[in-house]
Amino acid sequence: VTVRHAVGVDVGGTKCLAVVVEIDDATGRLGVVAEHRVDTPATGTADVVAAVAGLIRDLAVPGSVAPGAVAPGAAGRVAVGIGLPGLVDRAGTLWAAPNLRIDGPMTIGPLLADELGRDLGVDLDVVVDNDATCATVAEWQMGAGRHDGVPVDDLVVVTLGTGIGGGVVAGGRLQRGHNGFAGEIGHMVVDPAGPVCPCGRRGCWERYSSGSGLAHLAGGRRGEDVVAAARAGDAEALAVIAEFGRWTGIGLANLTNLLDPDLLVIAGGLVSSADVLAPAIDAGFAEALYAPDRRPHPGLRMAELGEPSGAIGAALLAAGI
Amino acid sequence: VTVRHAVGVDVGGTKCLAVVVEIDDATGRLGVVAEHRVDTPATGTADVVAAVAGLIRDLAVPGSVAPGAVAPGAAGRVAVGIGLPGLVDRAGTLWAAPNLRIDGPMTIGPLLADELGRDLGVDLDVVVDNDATCATVAEWQMGAGRHDGVPVDDLVVVTLGTGIGGGVVAGGRLQRGHNGFAGEIGHMVVDPAGPVCPCGRRGCWERYSSGSGLAHLAGGRRGEDVVAAARAGDAEALAVIAEFGRWTGIGLANLTNLLDPDLLVIAGGLVSSADVLAPAIDAGFAEALYAPDRRPHPGLRMAELGEPSGAIGAALLAAGI
Repeated sequence: VTVRHAVGVDVGGTKCLAVVVEIDDATGRLGVVAEHRVDTPATGTADVVAAVAGLIRDLAVPGSVAPGAVAPGAAGRVAVGIGLPGLVDRAGTLWAAPNLRIDGPMTIGPLLADELGRDLGVDLDVVVDNDATCATVAEWQMGAGRHDGVPVDDLVVVTLGTGIGGGVVAGGRLQRGHNGFAGEIGHMVVDPAGPVCPCGRRGCWERYSSGSGLAHLAGGRRGEDVVAAARAGDAEALAVIAEFGRWTGIGLANLTNLLDPDLLVIAGGLVSSADVLAPAIDAGFAEALYAPDRRPHPGLRMAELGEPSGAIGAALLAAGI
Repeated sequence: VTVRHAVGVDVGGTKCLAVVVEIDDATGRLGVVAEHRVDTPATGTADVVAAVAGLIRDLAVPGSVAPGAVAPGAAGRVAVGIGLPGLVDRAGTLWAAPNLRIDGPMTIGPLLADELGRDLGVDLDVVVDNDATCATVAEWQMGAGRHDGVPVDDLVVVTLGTGIGGGVVAGGRLQRGHNGFAGEIGHMVVDPAGPVCPCGRRGCWERYSSGSGLAHLAGGRRGEDVVAAARAGDAEALAVIAEFGRWTGIGLANLTNLLDPDLLVIAGGLVSSADVLAPAIDAGFAEALYAPDRRPHPGLRMAELGEPSGAIGAALLAAGI
């Protein structure tokens, strides 16, 4: 058998999205064969775990909602990856997650095994990682982080959503750091006198270059409204977008100076506004790059996999890819 | 033969420092067995190359100044590493070096071979890298980047001198990035409205947390004078040092958020003022760290190898370590 499956679940602040990824080890082909989602409960750890367990049950039990039922791997085990929105250590414990209602640190692997052990006819091998790390793996292996289909060796993925997350591939390997907390790039301080961040400090990059940052730059207008106005040619909105591009460019240039990636990939919810944002980001990046005439620029691209990237990457990590 | 030698040369803005490193492949023991230095010519590429060639000739020819003459490796070849102060690509070409008088981009390997081929009875294998990258390798393998003598897997070295340089070890490997330009952390922008940097942008980290940054924070007083006054208890100087520590802490926290290292090591000329600077840096770092109560702090240490670290690391790279 060269075809196997892995389940990935991306637990977000408002919804949980799950996919089944099919892996053909003979050809190297990867594909998504099922997708499913539920709202994320705001009522504590037990309900979050139950929601995730429900998604896995639906997708991993043959004959359930998944059109391509999961073929268990060796010894009847199913690989499951979970992406979580916060600081996840290398043992899979979530330590801090401002957008998730949980009761203190959460180690979801054993909780899922308990929840599912009773009614699922297979054993689970669960891996857990940060959601932006998962999205990074997905874009690296199946999306924009490739040249001609080949994953690059040096890649930084920046997820622009409500906040900013990220992931780092260096020297051909996903880098998690010593504790598993690498890629917390949204809290890179770019202006120590700037607005207060929920993290307690001032001027974190995500106060400027995320969805909430865009709203801040627009004096409290909704980011979506600014994008729509800019799309219609409104001069004031276009000035806000240019400012957004400058701040985004500063952060991207900082990442370039530190890591010298081959590619930078922008992922996350703001990618859906790329028609308006991408030109401003390109301009801001070109302006901010150090010694731009003396060094090759890294490629700067928009993500290709869209919303399911976190779930896809979680599945790929679970499959050992 | 399990003992071999490599020559390392660190080309600085004012001096060139060379060492011979002895490598015992049976025991893994590394040691410096000779050291030599000359002033760096300010009269163009040819003179810089001649000065470096002279150092290598002195150290690599048996019977010359080196007390432990170099034992050539396999096939009579001598491994030579060169550290250069600027953007060095993976082919060994120096593209930009603000503190070095050279005539455009310089590929020193073939120039040295030409210069030395006539009068040296051995062939050279030359590797070239950024000086801060070399210092990183030295501290990682022989200095402060180890636990109980074992190099850590995730390390960031920050060299505080006239400017700021750096090097990154992630996942157990030295990371050079796609072009070889990784670790240019001095040009991480931490204040886009800050003072103009010679690189053309504003508010680069090295405008605050280097020797020249310290002088800037002190309103133009020499950094050495501020350190001396702080050492004597002068309140105004101590306030400047505290401000220096805050800016340094911001940059170190940014590096931690991005890479989650096991250890951060401060190297470079300012280490000689560690008695005054280290407490301020420690305080600034503790204040700037994201989610400090929810995550282990990386270790923060001063470098151990001092001034020769760049030359030592260049030799280690040349030896394939």
